[in-house]
Amino acid sequence: MKTVAVTKIGSLRDPDESTRGRVGLVDFPDQPLGPEDVRIRVAYAAICGSDPHLAEGFFGTDVPIGLGHEISGVIEELGERANRNGLQVGDRVAGNFLKFCGTCRPCQAGAQQFCEHIQDYNRPGMAETIVWHESQVYKLPDDVSLLKGCLLEPTSVAVRIADKTRVRVGDRVAVCGGGPIGQLALQVMKMYGATSLTMIEPIADRRDMALRHGAEHVIDPVAENQFERTDEITGGAGFDVVIDASGSTRAVKGLLDIAAKGGMVVYGAMYPHDFEMPLNLSDYLYLKELTLTGVFVSPYAFPRALQVLPHLDVDELTEAVFPLDRAEKAFEVHVSGAYPKVVIRCNEIPEETVTS
Amino acid sequence: MKTVAVTKIGSLRDPDESTRGRVGLVDFPDQPLGPEDVRIRVAYAAICGSDPHLAEGFFGTDVPIGLGHEISGVIEELGERANRNGLQVGDRVAGNFLKFCGTCRPCQAGAQQFCEHIQDYNRPGMAETIVWHESQVYKLPDDVSLLKGCLLEPTSVAVRIADKTRVRVGDRVAVCGGGPIGQLALQVMKMYGATSLTMIEPIADRRDMALRHGAEHVIDPVAENQFERTDEITGGAGFDVVIDASGSTRAVKGLLDIAAKGGMVVYGAMYPHDFEMPLNLSDYLYLKELTLTGVFVSPYAFPRALQVLPHLDVDELTEAVFPLDRAEKAFEVHVSGAYPKVVIRCNEIPEETVTS
Amino acid sequence: MKTVAVTKIGSLRDPDESTRGRVGLVDFPDQPLGPEDVRIRVAYAAICGSDPHLAEGFFGTDVPIGLGHEISGVIEELGERANRNGLQVGDRVAGNFLKFCGTCRPCQAGAQQFCEHIQDYNRPGMAETIVWHESQVYKLPDDVSLLKGCLLEPTSVAVRIADKTRVRVGDRVAVCGGGPIGQLALQVMKMYGATSLTMIEPIADRRDMALRHGAEHVIDPVAENQFERTDEITGGAGFDVVIDASGSTRAVKGLLDIAAKGGMVVYGAMYPHDFEMPLNLSDYLYLKELTLTGVFVSPYAFPRALQVLPHLDVDELTEAVFPLDRAEKAFEVHVSGAYPKVVIRCNEIPEETVTS
Amino acid sequence: MKTVAVTKIGSLRDPDESTRGRVGLVDFPDQPLGPEDVRIRVAYAAICGSDPHLAEGFFGTDVPIGLGHEISGVIEELGERANRNGLQVGDRVAGNFLKFCGTCRPCQAGAQQFCEHIQDYNRPGMAETIVWHESQVYKLPDDVSLLKGCLLEPTSVAVRIADKTRVRVGDRVAVCGGGPIGQLALQVMKMYGATSLTMIEPIADRRDMALRHGAEHVIDPVAENQFERTDEITGGAGFDVVIDASGSTRAVKGLLDIAAKGGMVVYGAMYPHDFEMPLNLSDYLYLKELTLTGVFVSPYAFPRALQVLPHLDVDELTEAVFPLDRAEKAFEVHVSGAYPKVVIRCNEIPEETVTS
Repeated sequence: MKTVAVTKIGSLRDPDESTRGRVGLVDFPDQPLGPEDVRIRVAYAAICGSDPHLAEGFFGTDVPIGLGHEISGVIEELGERANRNGLQVGDRVAGNFLKFCGTCRPCQAGAQQFCEHIQDYNRPGMAETIVWHESQVYKLPDDVSLLKGCLLEPTSVAVRIADKTRVRVGDRVAVCGGGPIGQLALQVMKMYGATSLTMIEPIADRRDMALRHGAEHVIDPVAENQFERTDEITGGAGFDVVIDASGSTRAVKGLLDIAAKGGMVVYGAMYPHDFEMPLNLSDYLYLKELTLTGVFVSPYAFPRALQVLPHLDVDELTEAVFPLDRAEKAFEVHVSGAYPKVVIRCNEIPEETVTS
Repeated sequence: MKTVAVTKIGSLRDPDESTRGRVGLVDFPDQPLGPEDVRIRVAYAAICGSDPHLAEGFFGTDVPIGLGHEISGVIEELGERANRNGLQVGDRVAGNFLKFCGTCRPCQAGAQQFCEHIQDYNRPGMAETIVWHESQVYKLPDDVSLLKGCLLEPTSVAVRIADKTRVRVGDRVAVCGGGPIGQLALQVMKMYGATSLTMIEPIADRRDMALRHGAEHVIDPVAENQFERTDEITGGAGFDVVIDASGSTRAVKGLLDIAAKGGMVVYGAMYPHDFEMPLNLSDYLYLKELTLTGVFVSPYAFPRALQVLPHLDVDELTEAVFPLDRAEKAFEVHVSGAYPKVVIRCNEIPEETVTS
Repeated sequence: MKTVAVTKIGSLRDPDESTRGRVGLVDFPDQPLGPEDVRIRVAYAAICGSDPHLAEGFFGTDVPIGLGHEISGVIEELGERANRNGLQVGDRVAGNFLKFCGTCRPCQAGAQQFCEHIQDYNRPGMAETIVWHESQVYKLPDDVSLLKGCLLEPTSVAVRIADKTRVRVGDRVAVCGGGPIGQLALQVMKMYGATSLTMIEPIADRRDMALRHGAEHVIDPVAENQFERTDEITGGAGFDVVIDASGSTRAVKGLLDIAAKGGMVVYGAMYPHDFEMPLNLSDYLYLKELTLTGVFVSPYAFPRALQVLPHLDVDELTEAVFPLDRAEKAFEVHVSGAYPKVVIRCNEIPEETVTS
Repeated sequence: MKTVAVTKIGSLRDPDESTRGRVGLVDFPDQPLGPEDVRIRVAYAAICGSDPHLAEGFFGTDVPIGLGHEISGVIEELGERANRNGLQVGDRVAGNFLKFCGTCRPCQAGAQQFCEHIQDYNRPGMAETIVWHESQVYKLPDDVSLLKGCLLEPTSVAVRIADKTRVRVGDRVAVCGGGPIGQLALQVMKMYGATSLTMIEPIADRRDMALRHGAEHVIDPVAENQFERTDEITGGAGFDVVIDASGSTRAVKGLLDIAAKGGMVVYGAMYPHDFEMPLNLSDYLYLKELTLTGVFVSPYAFPRALQVLPHLDVDELTEAVFPLDRAEKAFEVHVSGAYPKVVIRCNEIPEETVTS
């Protein structure tokens, strides 16, 4: 079965081709179908900002490493006991690449994000088919196309970020970082109480995209003084909620200064393993009583992500689509930044045959 | 000072003119200006659904009873120590007709809604001027007109209702009752996470108004089976959040059936003093684990109501405007239901001179 | 395998022996051990207040109906894949008679209490052995005896009730009903912030038991005026949190009057199917802004119940112990009310051999 | 009026007497009594850990700087309008040295801790009398002595810390730092759901004091490996809640490692102005999803602190009592660390005459 995989460890951005990492098509054996499993013919698999990290060996260096966890598709086969969710062959679906065991201590305590067996069903989805446990599979609403549906997983991340903000309606909200997660978080916060909604992002195209999708203000943190701009936007109050979706070590510290007293700062991205942000306890936790938190994975968020997705405008995130056998090119385009997001079409599945 | 007041106790809807209640213009003495007080020249005062209850003697029967607690205006005079909020003569303002003393036990415990001296500064605002304590006065944003600004108080009620829902983004939400509070609650929930947003309302005009302002679905509870419609809309799940803004004794019980398991039902209206809703504890609190709560007044909500108001479309709630000396006519129109809301212009204050 | 079961439907309290329900020992086939299952040799099984309801046919009338869901025991055999929780043969354990599927919509949304397959592993535990899925089984702490351990399940109910109170430290708390759940809830609230802790209970022995275990005050609702007593105890404020563990249709309405403004009332018992409590919306939800909720089952609570149990003093709840073949007598004693709780010893398992 | 004050700026611990700071008795003018004010004859004023920071010029260097904000006393005189709280001359009281204005934006938003006029009534309480606004004054319960009552303010800090923990019953809790706030926080958490309650403190006497008041475990962070000890105590899970009451720059970072996944770390002390704690975002906010927050002042907490105080055992915190004219000696003893806390008796007020 054709699967996109890292075939050589190294940075995909490395200008030296001899050390550059490499992504290509590999033939993987078909995944077996257990009694509670679901085989999905994959329609689309989006490239995630974390995929190049895998090429760099972040989670291991034994190649080939199969890729793809933002997928949509159509159910092709159901295990004999995969009957607890009402799934049917032919259903248009998306889902969660992580499976929660339900048995370990964190699962029993309502903290599935720390499930001790979370990787058991994490299979590569940039492939012709994928087999998941039925608990990972969600039927798409009729008004969500397969192309849009492959963004269910990043939408669940934005929903989980929103959950952690504890936002109240009318709170002032800023999002730092205009990549795909930042754009989705912006749209989700737009529909979750945000006012004075502001995107902080140095790249003009991304700021413009934010303005097209609900940002009331944008700040260019390079060309502008973001503290003065925050004062203007918030009348001196600061932002009640600040979300970092940049993962930028240059950006993270300054967010503490634009947060309002008593505010919430959600560090919602991935950060370099060895990076330490200097945190002045007196200024930020004592005098300002800020609350800081982060997001690892997105438990309990998928059912609401399904409700949210139809309300999001993700056309700009699904413009660049490449067929499976051009996956290498797709990753080149992803790395180039020419598009905010790049999608791989794993099978030709006509939208019209499945939505009717 | 000319003030609109109840001049005769009785129902304003009474077909018998001899017993019908009456509203008219009365000359009240000017209110004195204390050192922390603010005198406001009133621009607009909206008629509230609760005003006719005052005519019926709900809170007392000694006429005249001055009316008006949804107001906007311009600051005319400041007490010598009214300097803690940055207010200036000429500022365009709205505010809270209730003042919280800050000293009684509930205020100290963070429950201003139960302030034991809440009525100390509750003065009639359908008048030429009103004097409030500066803690009641909020400067309007530049992009909010005085006409729109008189809806700050009902907006604060909708914000407080939203606060009590504990909604999560993507929750399914229904609002029962398409009067002004219901319409505002609908719009506020639209921007606070609601999906499958549904207005339940027997009057077609009000359902249409809801559809124009964000409702995804409407239910006519008279002509339709609201339980079946809920099943269709929510895929059998029910609404995670149900808000009653109807105050209707016929409607309230059925809301327990359309709430999802584990759902929240906020009874956000006023109800007849002697009405008791039969609550089956086994069905609703044990088996469904519903949570029921209500809203009395709106503490801590005004700063966020100010942020929310510019996002609301209230044009249809401010179409019917009558000058102060036609207050009696304004109340007749209010009672007729010809407009969703009726506003009284207490002074002619040109919008253009104040927004620049 | 010997199992306690309802052998004839009818009230166990029926004075007429010809119609009285009956509980006795029945020989049930051994339960099969699935690959993720655990076979437990049962040490103790406590009689629950809901067991007589089963005899009355509350959940069905096809006898025999096996009983027992509050159990402790020792692991006898593990399925081949029952290895996600670190369980070992010989472990002293207790657990949850309900299994959450992890796959249905409520489980995916973090609401396991509404799992659609919750009964799949609900087997009778008043038996020589029981087979549970490993996700239902919790290892007891070394300092909790098997006898105490059989109260883990009712402790989890008290924990879940406590969770739903949203209590703050220093809140005033009352518990209505001094049966086993009421006594456990009292003790749990004692260690969860309660002050002015009060037990409301008409039976003197139960009030005395409450006073021995942390109640600061007791109210006899028959002989005393509970509203006046509440005023005395709370200085006129009322109770911030009121828990009903009585299930009494006579008691439930009055709890709304002793709750403080803004207070929380948790209906934590079972109630007759057809009982409707008259709820004055104006008085309790509008003017007092009370919140009412209930508890069905106890998801996510067992890991913390395990932490809480060693802190509880349950000696008085485990005084009356009968061997398995005297189960009929045990139920007679339970029904007589001579002891607050009755326990059945299903196997003789010496405590000393397992705790070392 | 005799008042304890900083009379020379400098560290009270400075071994060089020529540069050492100095505290002594100064004659201050009587404070005027406004119409809503209360004059209190001070019984006891406790020395706070922050008082020496004032001697070092933390909040200003213009001597004399009056001291004392943890006080109890008896009402001597009431302003003409100080009648909203039921206070009477002769009442035994304690209170909050901060007054919240109720008018500024943070007060209106329910965030009194950021009141912009918080210092308006902050007067020195180590004096013969003090005048406070009535909103700052709380009547002591009959069973709380004046000596115990002077700890109401630090108790309110512990209550506020407890509020910010969002603890659930059965959570594992550690407190770092066995000074007065740490000991009070330990006792408050003991009655607010904590299990596996652990005090982390290098001084043996303070660990022993913690063990006498509810700690189940103690860790000496100097002699022991606190990570290994945490593993033992929590069975590898870590602490769900970690409270820092040490303010120690050496201690704060390690607390992130002993927190459980998904845990809460409350930095509840003051920290050096220029200290920055290195925070690895990837390890602590991303992978562990920790939440970090802090505490500045204690709004909305006093009514519950009054409920909590009778449950605390503070005898060891009130052993060392010095008369007002030996205040200098009292500060020497405080600095020596010979007692966990030192109290100044400002007037001889017999306990028996006031409690009857």
